[in-house]
Amino acid sequence: MKLIRHGEAGKEKPGIQDSNGRNLDCSSFGEDWNEEFFAPSTRIGPPISRPSKIICVGLNYRKHAEEAGMAVPEVPIIFMKATSSLCGPFDQIFIPKNSVKTDWEVELAVVIGKRAKYVSKEKALDYVAGYCVHNDVSERDFQLHHGGQWVKGKSADHFAPLGPVLVTTNELSDPHNLRLWLKLNGEILQDSSTSDLVFDVPTLISHISQYMTLLPGDVISTGTPAGVGMGLKPEPKYLKSGDIVELGIEGLGESRQEAIQDPEA
Amino acid sequence: MKLIRHGEAGKEKPGIQDSNGRNLDCSSFGEDWNEEFFAPSTRIGPPISRPSKIICVGLNYRKHAEEAGMAVPEVPIIFMKATSSLCGPFDQIFIPKNSVKTDWEVELAVVIGKRAKYVSKEKALDYVAGYCVHNDVSERDFQLHHGGQWVKGKSADHFAPLGPVLVTTNELSDPHNLRLWLKLNGEILQDSSTSDLVFDVPTLISHISQYMTLLPGDVISTGTPAGVGMGLKPEPKYLKSGDIVELGIEGLGESRQEAIQDPEA
Repeated sequence: MKLIRHGEAGKEKPGIQDSNGRNLDCSSFGEDWNEEFFAPSTRIGPPISRPSKIICVGLNYRKHAEEAGMAVPEVPIIFMKATSSLCGPFDQIFIPKNSVKTDWEVELAVVIGKRAKYVSKEKALDYVAGYCVHNDVSERDFQLHHGGQWVKGKSADHFAPLGPVLVTTNELSDPHNLRLWLKLNGEILQDSSTSDLVFDVPTLISHISQYMTLLPGDVISTGTPAGVGMGLKPEPKYLKSGDIVELGIEGLGESRQEAIQDPEA
Repeated sequence: MKLIRHGEAGKEKPGIQDSNGRNLDCSSFGEDWNEEFFAPSTRIGPPISRPSKIICVGLNYRKHAEEAGMAVPEVPIIFMKATSSLCGPFDQIFIPKNSVKTDWEVELAVVIGKRAKYVSKEKALDYVAGYCVHNDVSERDFQLHHGGQWVKGKSADHFAPLGPVLVTTNELSDPHNLRLWLKLNGEILQDSSTSDLVFDVPTLISHISQYMTLLPGDVISTGTPAGVGMGLKPEPKYLKSGDIVELGIEGLGESRQEAIQDPEA
């Protein structure tokens, strides 16, 4: 089943995307099978309501660690992204005030289905609700040069476009052989496969659950492959107003965001 | 006004602590002035419901930076604590599975009262709901030696005893001249004043709000003074089962936790 939430920001309703790709509102199901139900899609929100936490994994693809000039880690590097950064898959990316290095990162996101604490690798996949596409938008100056701890560069509003859909595990049992890609203004810059993950999904769930309790709805974003703006040769490249980012993962759909200056900046 | 929430974990009700120190349940106010209302206090929970984020500040007292062997930062160092670590002020501290270095940190916590984004230092205090005592419990091995980013050592269950009360700003307008202290098994180990903060509360709110949007209920924990277990001479000292931690801040009350092995470990 493909789950969505749709409607205006803050007033989204749960729904499903059927096998024809149509987005259906579950809150109307059985109650009001009316014109509105069949109306063309409105804005699509993130497929989950705000979770207790978004945990990101750093340097989890070998070539991305290389382009970042960092060592491939021996254990998963984790950091948080403020949940207030969550937005819909077709919303705009807001370039924050004083940003000069807003960058993109296509990632496979795992959504937790039940409370997970001290979970073994063997049982870890039992704790997954499903998977979705995530753009782990990152401000590299904020992340790396504004005084300790990456969370500073990961947490601005609209830095976490999630979706379009959450694909539940009954439809996607193996998350480890999926192509994932990202285009900037039509040019493909990231193109890899989740088969290249340094630490696979069960390893990540098991590892993280030794340090904190994962709650239903929590998101683990599994890291990005090579091809981010920071790593481009001969010159790094960062988002500017009007840029179009498109990204997708095999079986999980595609998202698209326009970059704009944060309207509140 | 002094706010509390009380009752069983997960079923807490909002209330107030009156000028005699009695905890009162607001959900009964005006409705049922009965025996239960005057019954002796049950367990006291954290004074706020689970926030969208708990943001901690690192190395924000000079002598603590020295004891940690780190430089006094030039800008605030921030990191996240999983909100699932929140617990009541008299709950037990759970020493996590495989922990050998569970440590204490008395801190002044600021609770945000309204959405704050790109806020100036001058207006920052307008965004505060109130203040409370926080024990920013920390596992030093997890924090510093388990592969990047401090969040790993800050986020276990029961690592964030908060309260007993949230004191609103109409009762505490200046948070910068409060004694704060912590005892381990009756021995005083931390004893300082918020007047020694490297970055004061308005600076922290303004700084953090440049990187992420603070939502009502969000917590900023402002850092701990010298005297944590990691910094003790001649030998560091860490929590073991049965240890009693007591801590307090002038005007904000006192909390007390017994350390035990995590019952789920």
